[in-house]
Amino acid sequence: MAQAKGIGVLTGGGDCPGLNAVIRAVTKTAINVYDYEVIGFLDGFKGLVENNYINLDLEKVSGIAHIGGTILGTTNRDNPFRYMTGGTPENPEFTDQSDRAIENLKKLGLEGLIIIGGDGSLNIAYKFYEKGVPVVGVPKTIDNDLAATDVTFGFNTAVDTASEALDRLHTTAESHHRVMILEVMGRYAGWIALHAGVSGGADVILIPEIPYDIEKVINKIKERYRQNKKFSIIVVAEGARPKDGEMVVQKVVPQSHDPIRLGGIGNKVAEEIEKRAGIETRVTVLGHLQRGGSPVPYDRILATRYGVAAVDAFARGEFGTMVALKGTDIVTVPLVEAIKELRKVPLDSDLIHAARSVGISFGD
Amino acid sequence: MAQAKGIGVLTGGGDCPGLNAVIRAVTKTAINVYDYEVIGFLDGFKGLVENNYINLDLEKVSGIAHIGGTILGTTNRDNPFRYMTGGTPENPEFTDQSDRAIENLKKLGLEGLIIIGGDGSLNIAYKFYEKGVPVVGVPKTIDNDLAATDVTFGFNTAVDTASEALDRLHTTAESHHRVMILEVMGRYAGWIALHAGVSGGADVILIPEIPYDIEKVINKIKERYRQNKKFSIIVVAEGARPKDGEMVVQKVVPQSHDPIRLGGIGNKVAEEIEKRAGIETRVTVLGHLQRGGSPVPYDRILATRYGVAAVDAFARGEFGTMVALKGTDIVTVPLVEAIKELRKVPLDSDLIHAARSVGISFGD
Amino acid sequence: MAQAKGIGVLTGGGDCPGLNAVIRAVTKTAINVYDYEVIGFLDGFKGLVENNYINLDLEKVSGIAHIGGTILGTTNRDNPFRYMTGGTPENPEFTDQSDRAIENLKKLGLEGLIIIGGDGSLNIAYKFYEKGVPVVGVPKTIDNDLAATDVTFGFNTAVDTASEALDRLHTTAESHHRVMILEVMGRYAGWIALHAGVSGGADVILIPEIPYDIEKVINKIKERYRQNKKFSIIVVAEGARPKDGEMVVQKVVPQSHDPIRLGGIGNKVAEEIEKRAGIETRVTVLGHLQRGGSPVPYDRILATRYGVAAVDAFARGEFGTMVALKGTDIVTVPLVEAIKELRKVPLDSDLIHAARSVGISFGD
Amino acid sequence: MAQAKGIGVLTGGGDCPGLNAVIRAVTKTAINVYDYEVIGFLDGFKGLVENNYINLDLEKVSGIAHIGGTILGTTNRDNPFRYMTGGTPENPEFTDQSDRAIENLKKLGLEGLIIIGGDGSLNIAYKFYEKGVPVVGVPKTIDNDLAATDVTFGFNTAVDTASEALDRLHTTAESHHRVMILEVMGRYAGWIALHAGVSGGADVILIPEIPYDIEKVINKIKERYRQNKKFSIIVVAEGARPKDGEMVVQKVVPQSHDPIRLGGIGNKVAEEIEKRAGIETRVTVLGHLQRGGSPVPYDRILATRYGVAAVDAFARGEFGTMVALKGTDIVTVPLVEAIKELRKVPLDSDLIHAARSVGISFGD
Repeated sequence: MAQAKGIGVLTGGGDCPGLNAVIRAVTKTAINVYDYEVIGFLDGFKGLVENNYINLDLEKVSGIAHIGGTILGTTNRDNPFRYMTGGTPENPEFTDQSDRAIENLKKLGLEGLIIIGGDGSLNIAYKFYEKGVPVVGVPKTIDNDLAATDVTFGFNTAVDTASEALDRLHTTAESHHRVMILEVMGRYAGWIALHAGVSGGADVILIPEIPYDIEKVINKIKERYRQNKKFSIIVVAEGARPKDGEMVVQKVVPQSHDPIRLGGIGNKVAEEIEKRAGIETRVTVLGHLQRGGSPVPYDRILATRYGVAAVDAFARGEFGTMVALKGTDIVTVPLVEAIKELRKVPLDSDLIHAARSVGISFGD
Repeated sequence: MAQAKGIGVLTGGGDCPGLNAVIRAVTKTAINVYDYEVIGFLDGFKGLVENNYINLDLEKVSGIAHIGGTILGTTNRDNPFRYMTGGTPENPEFTDQSDRAIENLKKLGLEGLIIIGGDGSLNIAYKFYEKGVPVVGVPKTIDNDLAATDVTFGFNTAVDTASEALDRLHTTAESHHRVMILEVMGRYAGWIALHAGVSGGADVILIPEIPYDIEKVINKIKERYRQNKKFSIIVVAEGARPKDGEMVVQKVVPQSHDPIRLGGIGNKVAEEIEKRAGIETRVTVLGHLQRGGSPVPYDRILATRYGVAAVDAFARGEFGTMVALKGTDIVTVPLVEAIKELRKVPLDSDLIHAARSVGISFGD
Repeated sequence: MAQAKGIGVLTGGGDCPGLNAVIRAVTKTAINVYDYEVIGFLDGFKGLVENNYINLDLEKVSGIAHIGGTILGTTNRDNPFRYMTGGTPENPEFTDQSDRAIENLKKLGLEGLIIIGGDGSLNIAYKFYEKGVPVVGVPKTIDNDLAATDVTFGFNTAVDTASEALDRLHTTAESHHRVMILEVMGRYAGWIALHAGVSGGADVILIPEIPYDIEKVINKIKERYRQNKKFSIIVVAEGARPKDGEMVVQKVVPQSHDPIRLGGIGNKVAEEIEKRAGIETRVTVLGHLQRGGSPVPYDRILATRYGVAAVDAFARGEFGTMVALKGTDIVTVPLVEAIKELRKVPLDSDLIHAARSVGISFGD
Repeated sequence: MAQAKGIGVLTGGGDCPGLNAVIRAVTKTAINVYDYEVIGFLDGFKGLVENNYINLDLEKVSGIAHIGGTILGTTNRDNPFRYMTGGTPENPEFTDQSDRAIENLKKLGLEGLIIIGGDGSLNIAYKFYEKGVPVVGVPKTIDNDLAATDVTFGFNTAVDTASEALDRLHTTAESHHRVMILEVMGRYAGWIALHAGVSGGADVILIPEIPYDIEKVINKIKERYRQNKKFSIIVVAEGARPKDGEMVVQKVVPQSHDPIRLGGIGNKVAEEIEKRAGIETRVTVLGHLQRGGSPVPYDRILATRYGVAAVDAFARGEFGTMVALKGTDIVTVPLVEAIKELRKVPLDSDLIHAARSVGISFGD
């Protein structure tokens, strides 16, 4: 790789519909527009530390925009700054392997990195930037809870999946006169629950931002009974919690989404409804179905715009930034701004207002 | 309802995509072709006992063929021959209310009943027939495990849902190098798991008909690792069980599908894979998503053919029968034949043979 | 309707996925939040002139958000200010019936109107506003070409349909080594073609904003041949036109979308490719399939927000305005601003830039 | 390829959802079960004549079952027995190149061929068989009109696409009070129109087997108007024709589906309705959308069963046969039986009876 410029790209954290569309856009733009060579590190930061990679050319990224997952592989762990280099899975020993990662970049003659990931991966990206590595980030979270960008790719696909699930549960709820609960992702922010609930005609939406009172939930169900609607649909974000109680999840592993079993809040709500109101209630946990599958067009397009913009930003030397959507425009924002906090649903958002106006209860 | 002939129709058991298409076809045929009036009893046999019904006319059934669920409502319980007439939910008292049901039919001037249901409901249908009620049955089971018919409506919709879920899980499995398990319906017969597994490219399919050896399952996963395929997809029917073990479900409530929590076999398989092979494994329980939503065209068509044929059979006086698909033809078969046993996947079926030929393991 | 306040609502112009979600949100908000009564005029402005309407209550709008079309009916014609009151269809006589419409409003005791429509209907809305009728508009156009709002509902559903069509055409193109052309809506603006083309992996996108050179289109196809990609996918907006030529459509009927046969540009491009390059080329005209069907979640949500916001604006007395999306917020803008011009794809938009970067040709 | 046995496989005629699933099943079974080597000839019989092929191994067919089209490519022309070897496209010269094809088989050490195709390709297959080539056929036609098999793969996918299109057209028809016509494939047999029409709730279905009377069609539409249903949905097979008239298509090219423009019958029906009844009518021609895209699970499964059974039949030495579905079983039938005539919709089929019973008119 004597003279040609080169950049590396990797995907970190949980998989998300649209990752391949970003990888394709990054690779095509880097090659077509800037005459870069492109290296794809495998399995997130692990490939960077272990120097495990593939060359990305136009052929390899052809026809992948509509395919879910990531052709580069990913992992939820393997932080180079706290990398497991000994011990056992139960009792691991961690060391800082970031210099080894940077050494690999140099040996490969790469000018820098495009890092596609959520708050965990972008935190790592920022640390590399602080150590002098030219880095541009691409925001990735199905939950849509990343600060500094209006929308992340994958989110609309997840809403689509959850909304379709609600359509399915609706017919069963109505036929059997039941309460049907759908538990969706959203540990800290209720974006998926809120959007899917409005789209899918939910009667109650429970989100982390609005602690709920189970009596209010039951009142809503009973009010519907009195209107001769003998069924109700409830969407629960996994991080929803009662007003007077704890979040059902105790253990929270930082920067990780999958490993923790969050199940419980949907069941908890169901049990209380059955116990207190005596109405048959069923729970469906959507789980991994929200992450997989082909991205909806909105996400393919957003992912493509992000991928192109990230290489453009890299070429302009805007390191330590992340591409973001603001209104209808793609912009760059400092990485540090992006990772400082999660973007929660504002209580005065017009979508919450709209939801209440069409009769949806938030259990408050 | 002085002179006009009349028939009643009801839907029993768990809801199933295609029920509305049957109701529509029954109503339209009865009115258009035979000049019957049609009464729809609400919430299955409960409406028959309680004399709770609606008049079905062309307007009411217009445009419902593609809608999931049943406009008549349904319930999994309320057998008129063992009807709860006292006590408490925990300690119920049952009495035979079948005469009351028959009395209602007479008072309404109905000549007989079209009963749409699974083995439970068809058993009840047969008992009414033995008591002299003109009855024609329409087979309904998502599981496709009813004897005497080649295919039941709803089954292909459930396969479609499960197959799409596998497509979604596939991208996550591949991106994260995981084993992904999908638990689908099928307590006694593995039709959904088998069809969805072949359609969705599963590597392992576990069904009740073929008790599995967990070591064989793990061998298959490891064999794929050796071929550099670091992920595997497993479809598990809820009634699958290990060779040397019990079915995970202990309690079985007759004639009921939903009330029992069958969860467990998917988790059991996952735990053993993680423990014995140390490979990250995730479980998704498809649950109610399999029952709901709009029927696929195959099911809308089959349901329509069944509905028309049931009224034709009724008009010809072929009581005590059930409509059924044999090859490409709709025929009638004695109800008694339909309910005598479940239709399991034959071990020498060409689909199992085909599955094995393309490399799918059944864990045996 | 003695004391209660009342508002009217109508849908004008071509149907569009999401209209029912707006009607539902308007009705629910008006009744739940403001205690209005709601009248729905049938078949657009025709119902207003003819005083043909239904009362909208919570029951009537229940469960319609996911259903395409409009329960109120619509029509592309029947402008009250130029209403056909005599003559023949071939030789019609028009008179101004706006006073009659306003008289109807008064007789019904309605305070004003929520008008859901495209530039034609919003023009009429503005004229009524100028005559003193309290009016709030809701923007509706599948083409997404309405000024003063970032996105209109229905657009993302149309992109979804077109993108899925491209996925289908792709496999045929590749198997048969053909050029496949998809002609989509967009007479004056290429939004659908651009979004669907990026999402569906088109090789060439032809839009009204960028007149094309057929030789450039053929060069792109031949360049792909040289890269051993013996097929190409082209998306053509119905209003695309060659650099040196006329738009294929001659006649343009104001305020109307459907009645004119716009066919031709897809065929024209195909004929030239076959003639000049000798490559088998096929055309699919998506036509009405883009308008129908269930709205995608994005559109259900946007339509709901619009419906709620329109009633809020009405209640605040912001007449002569239209609700609009700006960034992530719903705002109101003067109707006069909304109707003054169409919103075309800016040539410097980042999506065009992104499309070019990933190798898509615009034939220029 | 010294000792190992080898077989060749090719796909002929128009592409069809499920071809890749057959190719995958053939390859996997041949390698896994029979230890054959597998050669895939490219672009149908053209690759056989030109000796243009690829080696098919497990890697190449991995993960292709759900992808539309054919990885081997196909063509509608290039009959080895009448192969264009000179002249110009306008004035071609044909010679018999079948011996050259057979010579290629021998040089490659192939024992014989699995030929996946419609009546055209199976005719060629039969001629090769008569010349001594061991051949097993796999039936392929979207139209489902091949004799000797109950169902062909691809058909249910096409019905699904057409049925979904009807769902979309329905909402526009209803909103605009229009007649909407959908023209689907089916030059000689009306299977797709019949199935899609029943599934999609059509009011009129016009198929080649039942010549129509336009007055009867209009009567049906008017009858619906009288019932206050101011819209109608008509499905027209491309080969439908009026009682007193010619089929709209004049020229018929043997063994070819695509090259002929069959357009016209949908437009013809529309024009007559507008002219005679004065009701606004719109036509959508589904065209290539019916061929493309991912096969529905039913077709993936049937295609897999066919592929496995074809190799099994080959290994058993059952040459000159075709695999076929009879009832629920896969069987083999003599090729000569399969190609002797097309399978039309029987006028006494129970699906036509069912369609009539639910009120669908066939215009007769």
